[in-house]
Amino acid sequence: METKIQELARQAKQSSYQLATLSTEVKNDVLNSLRKNLINHSENLLVANKKDLNYAKDQDQSSAFIDRLTLNHDRIIAMADALTTIIELEDPNQRILESQTISNGLILEKTSTPLGVIAMIYESRPNVTIDAAALCFKSGNAVILKGGKEAIHSNRALHRVIVEALKEHSLSEVCVQFIDHTERAATHALLQQVDFIDVVIPRGGKNLIKAITEQSQLPVIKHLDGICHIYIDQAADMDMAEQIIINAKCQRPGVCNAMETLLIHQDIAKKVLPRFVEMLKEQGVRLKGCEQSCKIISNLEQASEEDWSTEYLDLILSIKIVKNTNAAIHHINYYGSGHSDSIVTEDKGCAEQFLQQVDSAAVYHNASTRFTDGEVFGKGAEIGISTDKLHARGPVGLKELTSYKYLIRGTGQIRD
Amino acid sequence: METKIQELARQAKQSSYQLATLSTEVKNDVLNSLRKNLINHSENLLVANKKDLNYAKDQDQSSAFIDRLTLNHDRIIAMADALTTIIELEDPNQRILESQTISNGLILEKTSTPLGVIAMIYESRPNVTIDAAALCFKSGNAVILKGGKEAIHSNRALHRVIVEALKEHSLSEVCVQFIDHTERAATHALLQQVDFIDVVIPRGGKNLIKAITEQSQLPVIKHLDGICHIYIDQAADMDMAEQIIINAKCQRPGVCNAMETLLIHQDIAKKVLPRFVEMLKEQGVRLKGCEQSCKIISNLEQASEEDWSTEYLDLILSIKIVKNTNAAIHHINYYGSGHSDSIVTEDKGCAEQFLQQVDSAAVYHNASTRFTDGEVFGKGAEIGISTDKLHARGPVGLKELTSYKYLIRGTGQIRD
Repeated sequence: METKIQELARQAKQSSYQLATLSTEVKNDVLNSLRKNLINHSENLLVANKKDLNYAKDQDQSSAFIDRLTLNHDRIIAMADALTTIIELEDPNQRILESQTISNGLILEKTSTPLGVIAMIYESRPNVTIDAAALCFKSGNAVILKGGKEAIHSNRALHRVIVEALKEHSLSEVCVQFIDHTERAATHALLQQVDFIDVVIPRGGKNLIKAITEQSQLPVIKHLDGICHIYIDQAADMDMAEQIIINAKCQRPGVCNAMETLLIHQDIAKKVLPRFVEMLKEQGVRLKGCEQSCKIISNLEQASEEDWSTEYLDLILSIKIVKNTNAAIHHINYYGSGHSDSIVTEDKGCAEQFLQQVDSAAVYHNASTRFTDGEVFGKGAEIGISTDKLHARGPVGLKELTSYKYLIRGTGQIRD
Repeated sequence: METKIQELARQAKQSSYQLATLSTEVKNDVLNSLRKNLINHSENLLVANKKDLNYAKDQDQSSAFIDRLTLNHDRIIAMADALTTIIELEDPNQRILESQTISNGLILEKTSTPLGVIAMIYESRPNVTIDAAALCFKSGNAVILKGGKEAIHSNRALHRVIVEALKEHSLSEVCVQFIDHTERAATHALLQQVDFIDVVIPRGGKNLIKAITEQSQLPVIKHLDGICHIYIDQAADMDMAEQIIINAKCQRPGVCNAMETLLIHQDIAKKVLPRFVEMLKEQGVRLKGCEQSCKIISNLEQASEEDWSTEYLDLILSIKIVKNTNAAIHHINYYGSGHSDSIVTEDKGCAEQFLQQVDSAAVYHNASTRFTDGEVFGKGAEIGISTDKLHARGPVGLKELTSYKYLIRGTGQIRD
């Protein structure tokens, strides 16, 4: 197994040099073929997906799981549409990021380049196969895809469509590699290929990401959980606060930029908490309060220490009353996941303090945390939202899939 | 031990929030105090250093090792001067990297921020203690210093001077932590602190960096070896080629941007190789040639496969004759370390191909590889030269010690 994975990674590295110099036009042509082929092969894809679905049902998987795994005509069209978006995006390579002429006449250009080879390790959503392949390809990177075993038939069929598109344009199929093994040993072997893989991007639950980070000898761009906070300051506009709270918690509770903990300034808690509780209960939200909240609201379920670092991804919310903005910031930096946090206040000083001191990828003033995504942030499409601080933070789009190098043009300069 | 290291890392994390919002003025004041204190405490520093030197001599360390370890008045002044340079550099934080107003009125600013906590692990040069502390501090990061056991007395004394400067400005000493343990277990414990440390930067020999990368649960900015190449194309200006070869190999052979392998186009090899060999031998360079080179030059030592991936850091050079520019690029991407490589040619097409396809941090046309450093590249000072592609590539200066975050200012926006 290890030899096989190594060979596959070596081939990917080899192909990455060719990919790095491919013109934007050729890349878009390939993506366009892929878009057409997806539609043309819909029936095959649905047949393959059916096998995965049958197996999942035999295994008594949850309906949410089966929903994530399911392909249908609409979803295939959505994958094709995502490709149209990626085709329209600017090529992130060959951008001149800095340029200077050194006193001895050397001309130095810092230019964006692909990263090289990206390993994508993900779970049951088959659309990630197409999205990841397309984003890596458009950014000039070779990619090695390792999907979840539950989606192996779907992913294999999708990969065949990708290979067909590559071949139509005389490109080697090793540009987009697919690991057709479901054993964990395959993932482990992949994570040791320091000579051939430049970065691994895991997508999925916290356990997957933790396991990969622990095993990996490769750099990882992590997408951990989104424990997002809204802090309602004493100087908040309460109508605005209510709208933001409902939006951040209820509009789509299963996503990483939804609120998990509500923080409230102690001086307004008595007044506003009953109103918030009523409003959230009306929306079907289960509430868990700190000790002080439970004193204000009788019958409120008490939050445990663990709640403050729990990503519910559900209609559940923890509520904590804090002394002031400092305490809110401290709570967020201590318990949060560095994803998205927001302050609601009319006090500009407090707002600026919060914006500067909260150590998260996206920090908001008077807005819902739900805006953190690649499309809103002008990236067009994203491969995920990084909770790391190195290289890419927040939405990871095409630009974040590039590195850079320095090109230095001289006329015979030597160093004194 | 592990508890102690964890506590120290936790304190560093705590202090990093304070550091992140420190004004440039205060940071420069601290660095200025440090500069003065270094000079004032020269005698103490030399006494401490003497202890390390005596121990090194007892251990029969090489003269090169003892030279790296040695402090003297001139070197203390050089450390102080390096601080003057860092004081003059622009603060890399709070730079607005991108700014946009989204259609719903949200104002989104991508702003540079410190990384947080940086662990610096290095070997015997005591000046790294001051350089690393100053660069991390100026970039708003907390730092944890772990120097080599051979320099423990010198580093301890230098750290005391740093703490004094911090205290003069009422800053906590935990901003610049020093691991006063020489056991390997301390390093291992440090490398597990995922909750408190954001990145580890190892400086030193290949073995140190390899060991750290393998053990680390933290992201690493690697500074591996510099296996740098000069490729002499058939269309090279030969006078220029000679000057660049001598400069890249001989001007300072012990540094990472010195040439280790010379590649020559086969069509000119017979003509130019004898001249190159004579010239390099005059400079005392030991030469190792490929099979073809050995046919041209009798008595030339033959290079082994291992030579192509060896960083000599000495007056030794491997020479290989290649078929063409493609073969040169292939050799560099296969055997090189992604540091600095150069082509000498008057053929602009070949030069551009080389610049685009060589996958290294710095790629040169008609210039010596010796220019790759932070000062030449306009960074003022550097903490090292990254051979990674993620986050920082090439010279790592103040800007490369920052991350970024998105600040989003709204007026009550919620997501549809």
